[in-house]
Amino acid sequence: MTTSSPTLDLTRELISRRSLTPDDAGCCDLIGERLSKLGFKLEWINSEGVINLWATLGSGAPLMILAGHTDVVPTGPLDQWNSDPFTPEIRDGILYGRGAADMKSGLAAMVCAVERFVKARGKFKGTIAFLITSDEEGVALFGTRYVVEQLKARGVKPDYAIVGEASSNEQLGDRIVIGRRGSLNGILKVLGKQGHVAYPHKVENPIHRFAPALAELVATQWDTGNAHFPPTSFQVSNIHSGTGANNVVPGECQVVFNFRFCTESTAASLRERVEAILKKHTLRYELDWQLSGEPFLTRQGQLIEAAAKASQEISGVKPELFTGGGTSDARFISPWGAEVVEIGPINDSIHKLNEHVKVADLDRLSTIYERTLEQLL
Amino acid sequence: MTTSSPTLDLTRELISRRSLTPDDAGCCDLIGERLSKLGFKLEWINSEGVINLWATLGSGAPLMILAGHTDVVPTGPLDQWNSDPFTPEIRDGILYGRGAADMKSGLAAMVCAVERFVKARGKFKGTIAFLITSDEEGVALFGTRYVVEQLKARGVKPDYAIVGEASSNEQLGDRIVIGRRGSLNGILKVLGKQGHVAYPHKVENPIHRFAPALAELVATQWDTGNAHFPPTSFQVSNIHSGTGANNVVPGECQVVFNFRFCTESTAASLRERVEAILKKHTLRYELDWQLSGEPFLTRQGQLIEAAAKASQEISGVKPELFTGGGTSDARFISPWGAEVVEIGPINDSIHKLNEHVKVADLDRLSTIYERTLEQLL
Repeated sequence: MTTSSPTLDLTRELISRRSLTPDDAGCCDLIGERLSKLGFKLEWINSEGVINLWATLGSGAPLMILAGHTDVVPTGPLDQWNSDPFTPEIRDGILYGRGAADMKSGLAAMVCAVERFVKARGKFKGTIAFLITSDEEGVALFGTRYVVEQLKARGVKPDYAIVGEASSNEQLGDRIVIGRRGSLNGILKVLGKQGHVAYPHKVENPIHRFAPALAELVATQWDTGNAHFPPTSFQVSNIHSGTGANNVVPGECQVVFNFRFCTESTAASLRERVEAILKKHTLRYELDWQLSGEPFLTRQGQLIEAAAKASQEISGVKPELFTGGGTSDARFISPWGAEVVEIGPINDSIHKLNEHVKVADLDRLSTIYERTLEQLL
Repeated sequence: MTTSSPTLDLTRELISRRSLTPDDAGCCDLIGERLSKLGFKLEWINSEGVINLWATLGSGAPLMILAGHTDVVPTGPLDQWNSDPFTPEIRDGILYGRGAADMKSGLAAMVCAVERFVKARGKFKGTIAFLITSDEEGVALFGTRYVVEQLKARGVKPDYAIVGEASSNEQLGDRIVIGRRGSLNGILKVLGKQGHVAYPHKVENPIHRFAPALAELVATQWDTGNAHFPPTSFQVSNIHSGTGANNVVPGECQVVFNFRFCTESTAASLRERVEAILKKHTLRYELDWQLSGEPFLTRQGQLIEAAAKASQEISGVKPELFTGGGTSDARFISPWGAEVVEIGPINDSIHKLNEHVKVADLDRLSTIYERTLEQLL
């Protein structure tokens, strides 16, 4: 049983820092100290109280970014944890603690991979950069998004980016995330005219007015997906109308719906098509849109190939190139022009009670990162 | 200005009795006393604490029933009444008090009409009966419904019934109610399978499953009405589904709907047609039905003609034969086989604050009843 290794030790040090989003709690200082010793130049691109570290070593292209976040989601009920979330504890080969999988292990594995790579290689081609934020789990406005804006403005052009998010499904390395569906919410209010059910000619029932439009929205095929994405999906998550009384026709109907959409559609095209349907049914309505993220599919290039090769070498399985799952900072890095992959530990415990990572996977993940760097730099 | 007349005086005496439903508060005793003096035979058909008076004079056919209720609805906030609801008060030719329109004035007008009719005519053809209850405004299970059951069981067969409910719209006698739409509520729960919006293949969205069925229900023409009724109307009064979260597909969708239906449909036919639509769309659902009342249209015979003639003679306007409005005990008397009309004062203040009736209408209403009796008995 491994009870000490560089990746395990650094993961434990990071978990013990109580970095509830957007608090960094000293994690970036710790990482910055380690990188400094390797010769990295540290730059703090903080914004609105959010700690953002941009650390670079080397020069010129290719620019390889190793990206991650130090903040973690809240613990939930402490009495339902088997050990303190901020006191890393190993039981039966599993390391428990908030951030064990999402994503302090990924950060630690990256730092240790670079330490070994730099020490072994001495000089390498291009630039290695760390982009680390403490605002990924929260509003995510002042973290990676902000840093990317600043760096883009000064002409920095990335080639590759590895995000150390928990991408693996059942075993380490079985999935590499290469893109993600977009998410778009619509908050719709269909307007009618309230009145007594006994006088149908004096009312305009917004549920009735909406019914054929809803049926059409539900029946619409928005696209058929593509090789990397399933078809765009439309789901009404909430519909509420009615005063509670059974003899009153309500005055409005409130609807919330969500698109998970692939690269065959855009937020703009979906908005336009929904409004066309509402207008075709001559509805009076108010509609607000909330775009959580456009879909992206990373450039298909050398990084995917190198990461897949390294992953298969270490884990023994051919990784699935995956576009499902939740959001990550890859959504900000991809449009900047980088080829981006996410590769990290098994994700089944993230955001849950008793979050954990297999101790044996820590050094293996670090080696996957190291082998990937070796192929590209 | 009239400050005393038999109908006004009896109306005032009845209003001053605080007969909040189902309390009779001595109203039936007062009426029974008056009828006794005319030779009426009184029978108390009480049930579950509800006072029901069945009083008859004469013998054989035709049997003319004068029907009404002594109970009144609650007053609402007393400080919003301009005078005490149970202290009848005349201001500017208007009599104020709870029950002034619904329907102590109707009862008083009927009693006084019969007093004049019997005194003037001496012997008359057939039987006059009063059917008076104190359970019309409440659950209405132990009032007229109960009395009708008892009388039907002993073979009593009515020919005519006048219900003294406030039927008039803008002026006394402009409407006579000759029927009423039915009311049927459906409480529907469409079942689905809850889950995350990001995984549409793992959920069954009950809003989506219901959408085409709803569109079909809304578009259905249930019937086209007839000479006396508008078409049956379907209205969804409430629809609720959703957890509040915008990323969760809900597990069920709750719907409440109402039919106001005419005599071209029945509760059974509507239930059957709704279920056929739900089944056609292969929904999993639970559905409860609540029937408030079947529709009825009274027999078209001599009573309508006589009442309309009397009404027009006294009020100067040709009455509209009306089937709109709320429920009354006519729904129990009509299926018993009687030709039933409702004719009474203007209904705009019933169930409201400062309920009232025009003093000048009291004797006129009583005369309408008297003239109707004169034509038929």
